[in-house]
Amino acid sequence: MLERRNVSLNLNVRGLRHSATLEVNQQVRRLRAEGRKVHNLGLGESPFPVPDPMVEALRLNASKKQYLPVEGLPELREAIAAHRKRTQGVATEAEQVLVGPGSKELLFLLQLSFYGDLIVPSPCWVSYTPQGQIVGHKVRFVGTDPGNGWKVTPDGLAALFEEDRDRYRPRLFVLNYPANPTGVAYSADELRAIGEVAREYEVLILSDEIYSGLHHAGEHVSIARYYPEGTIVLNGISKWGGAGGWRLGAFLFPPDLRWLQDAMAAVASETYTSVCTPVQYAAVRAFESGMRMERYLSHTRRILRDATGACHRILTEAGVDVVRPDGAFYLFPDFGRFRRRLARRNIRTSRALCDALLEEAGVAMLPGSDFQRPREEFTGRMSLVDFDGAKAMAKSEEVGPDKELPEDFLDLCCGDLLEAMRAVVDWLGPR
Amino acid sequence: MLERRNVSLNLNVRGLRHSATLEVNQQVRRLRAEGRKVHNLGLGESPFPVPDPMVEALRLNASKKQYLPVEGLPELREAIAAHRKRTQGVATEAEQVLVGPGSKELLFLLQLSFYGDLIVPSPCWVSYTPQGQIVGHKVRFVGTDPGNGWKVTPDGLAALFEEDRDRYRPRLFVLNYPANPTGVAYSADELRAIGEVAREYEVLILSDEIYSGLHHAGEHVSIARYYPEGTIVLNGISKWGGAGGWRLGAFLFPPDLRWLQDAMAAVASETYTSVCTPVQYAAVRAFESGMRMERYLSHTRRILRDATGACHRILTEAGVDVVRPDGAFYLFPDFGRFRRRLARRNIRTSRALCDALLEEAGVAMLPGSDFQRPREEFTGRMSLVDFDGAKAMAKSEEVGPDKELPEDFLDLCCGDLLEAMRAVVDWLGPR
Repeated sequence: MLERRNVSLNLNVRGLRHSATLEVNQQVRRLRAEGRKVHNLGLGESPFPVPDPMVEALRLNASKKQYLPVEGLPELREAIAAHRKRTQGVATEAEQVLVGPGSKELLFLLQLSFYGDLIVPSPCWVSYTPQGQIVGHKVRFVGTDPGNGWKVTPDGLAALFEEDRDRYRPRLFVLNYPANPTGVAYSADELRAIGEVAREYEVLILSDEIYSGLHHAGEHVSIARYYPEGTIVLNGISKWGGAGGWRLGAFLFPPDLRWLQDAMAAVASETYTSVCTPVQYAAVRAFESGMRMERYLSHTRRILRDATGACHRILTEAGVDVVRPDGAFYLFPDFGRFRRRLARRNIRTSRALCDALLEEAGVAMLPGSDFQRPREEFTGRMSLVDFDGAKAMAKSEEVGPDKELPEDFLDLCCGDLLEAMRAVVDWLGPR
Repeated sequence: MLERRNVSLNLNVRGLRHSATLEVNQQVRRLRAEGRKVHNLGLGESPFPVPDPMVEALRLNASKKQYLPVEGLPELREAIAAHRKRTQGVATEAEQVLVGPGSKELLFLLQLSFYGDLIVPSPCWVSYTPQGQIVGHKVRFVGTDPGNGWKVTPDGLAALFEEDRDRYRPRLFVLNYPANPTGVAYSADELRAIGEVAREYEVLILSDEIYSGLHHAGEHVSIARYYPEGTIVLNGISKWGGAGGWRLGAFLFPPDLRWLQDAMAAVASETYTSVCTPVQYAAVRAFESGMRMERYLSHTRRILRDATGACHRILTEAGVDVVRPDGAFYLFPDFGRFRRRLARRNIRTSRALCDALLEEAGVAMLPGSDFQRPREEFTGRMSLVDFDGAKAMAKSEEVGPDKELPEDFLDLCCGDLLEAMRAVVDWLGPR
């Protein structure tokens, strides 16, 4: 009986659930297949089509089939390095770039290769800590201030490091901005101060900048400007390039961390080997930028700024605590002020809150506990992408680039989103 | 000084080299860039273009961008299951299929998820054991008989299992056929006997059938026919579909191993997430088969059969021990009979042999030690793909499907391969 061999699982893997974001998506698909109307605020997927220059390049390179070098197509590494130089003014060479089949895979290989503690903010993206657990890392959380956009403070970080008996204990600190799940970005001053603490304790920073191209004002600032020697930057085409399903991400290493980059490349050569060849050629177009890419990004940002702003307003006016995002397409509301009403419905955890919202209001979102918040805190993540991105893009293109979108734009193009917000507010009832 | 943090590497990763096959490729590129003429018999990459139906499907689906389910595109899982039923007569449902970004990545996730020993033949493909080491598995080798095509015998396997105090110690046995590095396939009777031993000791088999479509007679037989309940089958489009750089492989699990499939899918959701969406749509065409795919495969097989056969003959006539392959595009010669001549040149390991061959004869091949053979054995792998596959395919198409290729075909289309063999023979000198 081979079935009894289910004792033969790695204990770090045993009982592991599917990534929360992917799971909610499959749940929504199931409900919709049953004919239910569901607002899917679960999965963090760009609603916009892949930009034409990238699609054209994929078609053009469809017959390319050779294995590319592990670290990536030389032209792509060059384009990624040049993109960084251009957007952040940080000197970067192609050799510093490692390309992978999605930044999540690269993050996993980083955690697998690095020997030390993993430090993450709370709240943070759903996959950092499960990855750490698979690999067997000690995972530690640094607190954030809800009143200050759930941001990590330099003092909070330093206090955590001071708890260790070994000041220079090897640590990897993951900082993500614009952030998933809050949409909040850090100011240059805040980044400088965090970088100084990291330098003092010789902590590696993994700067997850996957949403950098979706900073609503187009003003993303990287911590690599202030702590270049210890920062690994993560980027990719999944969010601002609309190409999540294409699976391409990249890490940029400082020269001092060549040992870590080389170790990861060696592991990559024994795992994913190289990234899909036609996709690498197509991604060159994303990082080269150019007029059409820039226009695409400016429409994307304008739409997301207005859509997240309107949803933020509806929730705020209903008495929900929620920070206005600086980028990306998320809101991270806290329904704590409705605690008594929720308790009367026997809702005592963020998970129960989300289950009830899906069942009774037809709105799918992820509970704060998936983002490493306490179970009893009534937070959750809304991903505001449940609208027709192609239609919104086309409408936005009809409006001049430097103008505001017309008043009826959101009703026309993102009506379902507004409806979802109202469904949540109605379900909550008066405070 | 962050550089001193190079102590902070996972010890299982520290010192890991790039995968041997990828490394030799980079070495050849370097030499060629220096203007040297090099026969590259290093990397195991199909020389043929990706079949037109697949390229057309990739173009057609280039704008698809959604994240697909972790386990794979439903149509693709369906096509892979149907392909198996059609080619092997083994009942298979779409739910049994897990799609990954290359079968190497899936193998790694299997090793990461499974808790038990890894058993591999010697010789075997270069990446099984480094993967086992990264994960921390105990790796054990089962001997093979060079006189019988380097094949594992049921008795040899049983003897190895008997060495353990626990008869049912959890074990994963990897069997690859047509084999890399030897090109040898197992007969139905041999597979049945191996399956019986595996059943007796309740050993999981990972049946690596990545070269199944390249069985020269088109007569691949899977061990899943004889040990269905304990066999996971590996397949993919890298070799017989000519699309190594596209990165798509698949595992087929028996229903009894659902626990392992689910664990792997959970790890997949925290690592690679899903496979490139346009590539999954294109791969449907590979597994659906159809007339154009079948014609492509029959040309491929005919060319490879003749090319490997001719190279085999040249080496054999020169006194080199080498088994005639049943499939794929490899030869695994043993130069042991030249031991004395080699010793006079101070060549005492397969690595030294390959270094000298590259330096002095301009032929790149991989030493037997990369395939887990003893360092001092003068074996090595030749990958016979250093010819223009598109040209050979076009020439083959001019010949009727049921005819033999004309005598001058190899000189015209695979001349470099024959030249490489002669260069090796000349370098060896008389026995």
